[in-house]
Amino acid sequence: MGALWTDLYELNMAASYLRRGMAGPATFSLFVRHLPPERGYLVAAGLADALRFIESYTFTADDLAYLRDVHDFDESTLKAFAGLHFSGDVWAVPEGRIVFADEPLLEVTAPIAEGQLLETYLLNQMTFQTTIASKAARCVVAAGGRDVVDFSFRRTQGPDAALSVARVSAIVGFAGTSNVEAARRFGLRAVGTMAHSYIQAFPTEREAFRAFAEDFPESTTFLVDTFDTLDGVRSAIDVIRDLGLSAQLGIRLDSGDLSDLARESRGLLDGAGLTDARIVASGGLDEYVITRLLADGAPIDTFGVGTKMGVSADAPYLDSVYKLVAYGGRPVMKLSPAKVTAPGAKQVFRRVDGPFDDVIGLRDEPIAPEREPLLVPVMRDGRPVDEGDDLHSANERFRRDLLRLPGSARRIERPVHPLVRRSRRLDDLIARTERSVAPENSHTDAGSLGGL
Amino acid sequence: MGALWTDLYELNMAASYLRRGMAGPATFSLFVRHLPPERGYLVAAGLADALRFIESYTFTADDLAYLRDVHDFDESTLKAFAGLHFSGDVWAVPEGRIVFADEPLLEVTAPIAEGQLLETYLLNQMTFQTTIASKAARCVVAAGGRDVVDFSFRRTQGPDAALSVARVSAIVGFAGTSNVEAARRFGLRAVGTMAHSYIQAFPTEREAFRAFAEDFPESTTFLVDTFDTLDGVRSAIDVIRDLGLSAQLGIRLDSGDLSDLARESRGLLDGAGLTDARIVASGGLDEYVITRLLADGAPIDTFGVGTKMGVSADAPYLDSVYKLVAYGGRPVMKLSPAKVTAPGAKQVFRRVDGPFDDVIGLRDEPIAPEREPLLVPVMRDGRPVDEGDDLHSANERFRRDLLRLPGSARRIERPVHPLVRRSRRLDDLIARTERSVAPENSHTDAGSLGGL
Repeated sequence: MGALWTDLYELNMAASYLRRGMAGPATFSLFVRHLPPERGYLVAAGLADALRFIESYTFTADDLAYLRDVHDFDESTLKAFAGLHFSGDVWAVPEGRIVFADEPLLEVTAPIAEGQLLETYLLNQMTFQTTIASKAARCVVAAGGRDVVDFSFRRTQGPDAALSVARVSAIVGFAGTSNVEAARRFGLRAVGTMAHSYIQAFPTEREAFRAFAEDFPESTTFLVDTFDTLDGVRSAIDVIRDLGLSAQLGIRLDSGDLSDLARESRGLLDGAGLTDARIVASGGLDEYVITRLLADGAPIDTFGVGTKMGVSADAPYLDSVYKLVAYGGRPVMKLSPAKVTAPGAKQVFRRVDGPFDDVIGLRDEPIAPEREPLLVPVMRDGRPVDEGDDLHSANERFRRDLLRLPGSARRIERPVHPLVRRSRRLDDLIARTERSVAPENSHTDAGSLGGL
Repeated sequence: MGALWTDLYELNMAASYLRRGMAGPATFSLFVRHLPPERGYLVAAGLADALRFIESYTFTADDLAYLRDVHDFDESTLKAFAGLHFSGDVWAVPEGRIVFADEPLLEVTAPIAEGQLLETYLLNQMTFQTTIASKAARCVVAAGGRDVVDFSFRRTQGPDAALSVARVSAIVGFAGTSNVEAARRFGLRAVGTMAHSYIQAFPTEREAFRAFAEDFPESTTFLVDTFDTLDGVRSAIDVIRDLGLSAQLGIRLDSGDLSDLARESRGLLDGAGLTDARIVASGGLDEYVITRLLADGAPIDTFGVGTKMGVSADAPYLDSVYKLVAYGGRPVMKLSPAKVTAPGAKQVFRRVDGPFDDVIGLRDEPIAPEREPLLVPVMRDGRPVDEGDDLHSANERFRRDLLRLPGSARRIERPVHPLVRRSRRLDDLIARTERSVAPENSHTDAGSLGGL
């Protein structure tokens, strides 16, 4: 990923800033303006990829040749681009933390051209990964302690997206992924058994089950719905007995009425003494279906969640922005109708204990003793602040925040996000900045600032 | 992308096939089972990436070591994997062609392990790219000849997805993309101007406009909605006059009532003699909004379409499958309730002239003189059949098919897809296969086969 992984206008603006010697420090703030109606909270994700991109940001000779030949950038701009790398600071919410609308996920402070050039990539990764982490979290919550595994590889926007989806689903507590490359890269548990095609490649279902169990005697999950599901369960039981299997066993239901079939299958398995055999369900699952199945008492042990989590089907994007909030020591804000942004480098102050009661304030405000800052420095002067983060820590942060999230925000249907307030100092800055920006034609007042 | 870019169960099944010497030729068929309610047609896409993956499919030493160390694959399987590459045939619908539910987009015929291992990747790329091409096509249709450009980079599932989205939007006739890397790779027109942050980095909007126009005098589009939109238009007009600009000029509206603002802006521009200045609209656009804006008579010349196209927000996935339809010379089918698949290697026969009246038949059926086959051979014996395709040809195919598509399928709201029939020979094969597969417990009959 090089410097051309951006929108053309970022390059145009950067060129103009550089030509005009506009090198003053600018702060850009990345946040989500509104939560979709189906979301009571978001889970921060995408930071690892964002930092990797920022660290390695550079124009290659090929990049510069393309900009010269096709886009007529002049030599002095190309020379400035050739020497450009990221030299600024980044503050961000660590991956796995729960966040809400208007709370910055990430803030960049750097010479304005450097900050501008990062906009497209940062919005892309942070929005995508936060969207999916938030959806996956709801699946975990719905499953109420039962295992959820990632089956989304075939449905994401390309194979690289599938890696990210597997990774962020692990952050929120998925127990495994079908994606082998993701399992290798991120040290996840790879899970999987057989497809319908395997069954169909044998003369009968029973022969297929027997063959698979012979080849994978340590751990076999029989896919039982290729023909008749309960007949499939009976065949699986026969094969388990014939072969004397006693290791990890299970069946997978992938179609039909999963609730009824799970109950009937459980009865057959228990009747055969296979009380430890697990029932895996898949096929169009999401947090809504999982909730209904469990409300129904369906005895399902593991939920395989694919498509609807992998594209966050009910809310496939977030209304995220990357806004200039300060430049050259001056706070700035935008007054477009319904798109007002608050000025200044910010911090989110969260109570250390008890339910969420976040306050968005200015970065340099003193922190009350009962609160902790949500944004932490992750780059200083263009260098990463520490060794980097790991998935285990991200999962710990998610679990800690989730425990404290009110039930009204956790719930699957019609969730309500907790109230987020603004600090007095931020309110004052908004009022002062509005007066300075638009003495005559302000279309807004502080009260109209999004969900604050 | 190597051999581990797949679901674990594909590797398990392939291992089992190889161990058992199951090397008979298998045919897998990739198709979409049902169109989402908001789609009257699909546009085939993803084949270029699919073929690249198939051609280069191989297990590296690292891949094999991981499978040995973490997943306990035995040495004879690893040896078989080490020697495995794709040696089969692929037939596919060329990119850009219009297709419907149940019509195969791609069929693979190869030793069963080879075909099985490709499933995850092929489903991923073909589904994703066809989903987006189909959404983007609707935007082009809604715009009725006006320019549509791709602004989706910040909203796709990662930066690689953004490249694919830019590419498939070009297939269906998008006039440009904001994505510089995509423009470079695929020879597209890169488009873009300034963001709100640029305006805010200057003391006043007018100074920002003047600076940008000085730096990019050949082509300037003024973003006019940072403060008050119509004041912004007036400032742009003043700057155009002051600087005596006469090249490509335009304004961009990104918020507010785009219809009213476009009309009022057009009035101001025309009043200033700037009748050639273009009006670009962006901000939450999709085919539904474009339709309403044009029905309203909004004088918009270019639509910048981002988020909702980039994730196909109203239908973010397709119900695609990759099904075994023949193995070892024997047609096979699956009888799971509501998931029945038709057996045999197939072909789609489309009328050369007149409206669509597709017939899905068997690949070896004779072709009636008034029809053409939709699937063409793209790989034989593991090698690509020709030099590959280009975007221009794909766009030509799309435009030709679109011209013949009935209005009821083209329309944006409540479209109806044309009827697709099955050939007599395919019907006969279905009936014969059903009898052979499930003499006692068939849960279906030929009449229940999806939308056919």
